[in-house]
Amino acid sequence: MTTELDLALRERLGTLASEIDRRLTAIADAWTGPDTLVEAMRYALFSGGKRVRPAMTLAACEAAGGTATEALDEGAALELIHTYSLVHDDLPAMDDDDIRRGQPTVHRKFDEAIAILAGDALLTEAFTVLAARDVPGARRADACCVLAEAAGRSGMVGGQVRDIQVPAQTAEALTQMHAEKTGALFVAACRLGAIAAGATPDDTERLIAYGRAVGEAFQVSDDLLDLLELGEAGGAHEAEVNLPSLIGPSAALDRVRADVATALEALAALPGDCGTLEMLARWIEERSIAAVATLEATL
Amino acid sequence: MTTELDLALRERLGTLASEIDRRLTAIADAWTGPDTLVEAMRYALFSGGKRVRPAMTLAACEAAGGTATEALDEGAALELIHTYSLVHDDLPAMDDDDIRRGQPTVHRKFDEAIAILAGDALLTEAFTVLAARDVPGARRADACCVLAEAAGRSGMVGGQVRDIQVPAQTAEALTQMHAEKTGALFVAACRLGAIAAGATPDDTERLIAYGRAVGEAFQVSDDLLDLLELGEAGGAHEAEVNLPSLIGPSAALDRVRADVATALEALAALPGDCGTLEMLARWIEERSIAAVATLEATL
Repeated sequence: MTTELDLALRERLGTLASEIDRRLTAIADAWTGPDTLVEAMRYALFSGGKRVRPAMTLAACEAAGGTATEALDEGAALELIHTYSLVHDDLPAMDDDDIRRGQPTVHRKFDEAIAILAGDALLTEAFTVLAARDVPGARRADACCVLAEAAGRSGMVGGQVRDIQVPAQTAEALTQMHAEKTGALFVAACRLGAIAAGATPDDTERLIAYGRAVGEAFQVSDDLLDLLELGEAGGAHEAEVNLPSLIGPSAALDRVRADVATALEALAALPGDCGTLEMLARWIEERSIAAVATLEATL
Repeated sequence: MTTELDLALRERLGTLASEIDRRLTAIADAWTGPDTLVEAMRYALFSGGKRVRPAMTLAACEAAGGTATEALDEGAALELIHTYSLVHDDLPAMDDDDIRRGQPTVHRKFDEAIAILAGDALLTEAFTVLAARDVPGARRADACCVLAEAAGRSGMVGGQVRDIQVPAQTAEALTQMHAEKTGALFVAACRLGAIAAGATPDDTERLIAYGRAVGEAFQVSDDLLDLLELGEAGGAHEAEVNLPSLIGPSAALDRVRADVATALEALAALPGDCGTLEMLARWIEERSIAAVATLEATL
């Protein structure tokens, strides 16, 4: 089912993703180093990612009163981090995935050592992109700081450790794991946009609140869609534990609605163009409502 | 054989290493995140490393006219990078080492997934240490930039890729691999010290020249000692290819002498206390001379 909002959001995100892809291409075209390493880095980076996180960075920059173009390096750095995390998560010692987006994963296309090293190099490269450019030192350093905190032990890497250790069995544990593993980069997307726009501390806090709420709502809506797909495949009992399976689809939808309300409220006082961020929040609510309606109709 | 220079250098490096350890302890004591992850990061970081690279950072800061204390964060960040690289290099897909410094490697003590993630978190942490502190933005950002360039695709990671691919068989290929894999962090040690001291561009260039020359000399002297040990063990034919085995110990010693001369010349015009850096360069030459003398006596 494609709605008007669906189409409008896809078009807008597609435009922002193209800008990000152009910047990433320019960055990667300048890469030196051993051929195999650079090839593996490019293979991982240009494998059909939708660039949702960097698009949020550009949109957050607009919302804070800047232009999308101003935040391209911040967005590119964030996508490098997201890309490295996928390369390492796919490794045999972690999720052991052979295929990502229809193509062999990096360790299958190359080998395990190259996948580890390409991930390390992509992670390191994110900081070169932020730190080695012609903008004031405080902006370069603040962006490095936000990205490192979101990506590290208390953010994405920490969430991944929790996820592979004891699978979360309570709503609280799941929510914390997701806040770290995926939510931290959504919040960072907004904070990086705020830094690129030179946002005030108050506006930065608003964008953080937006990122946190939308990050959680996005995860829950994804879980609802998973539940739906699984129900259609007739294998509901094999579902891995997620928030909708723990608290029920209807309570999960309430959570999405509350998050989206929080997100929209956070946007209200921002000085810039909040169009994209608003569409994104409304679209998450829309697809969650549709998923729950179908789930309840099939019960 | 312990010489006067040996003792003086060890004492001086020991003092600097204690200061680095105190700073690293303070940094690690503030780490939050999943217990196992933080434990693995600490296990890797406090496993008896000699802190040679960060000691060079402190010494380079002194040579440029600053004090050792001023460069502690730069030194700590460099040691975090060095530590992560050892954790990843030890992995089964890379060197597959079970023991490091007499203790189980991180993936043997914990598991492979934790070792990959602890390495990722240590690498990321280095940029938090540099970017999240109360010094001017330009210094924070410039330090991130220098560290990322030295650690990434054209530096340490690139050198590791070359090392695990086709083993270098010519003096040129070996020299390039070592310049990237180990030399880049020695140069970064000096550049970070220069940044901490607020060195002039000319003094920074002098410290880079010193770092490059000493990094190469250090590697060749290590190779000479390896050759000596191997000769004493009676297994010279099993030696892996290194510069002394390719060009001969005497030509290798000439290379060390030339590098040390370059290094000492670079120090001559620096405004600060070059005592430690000078001792380090002279000590490398001294141990190379001793190694070659023994090698020639046993031929």
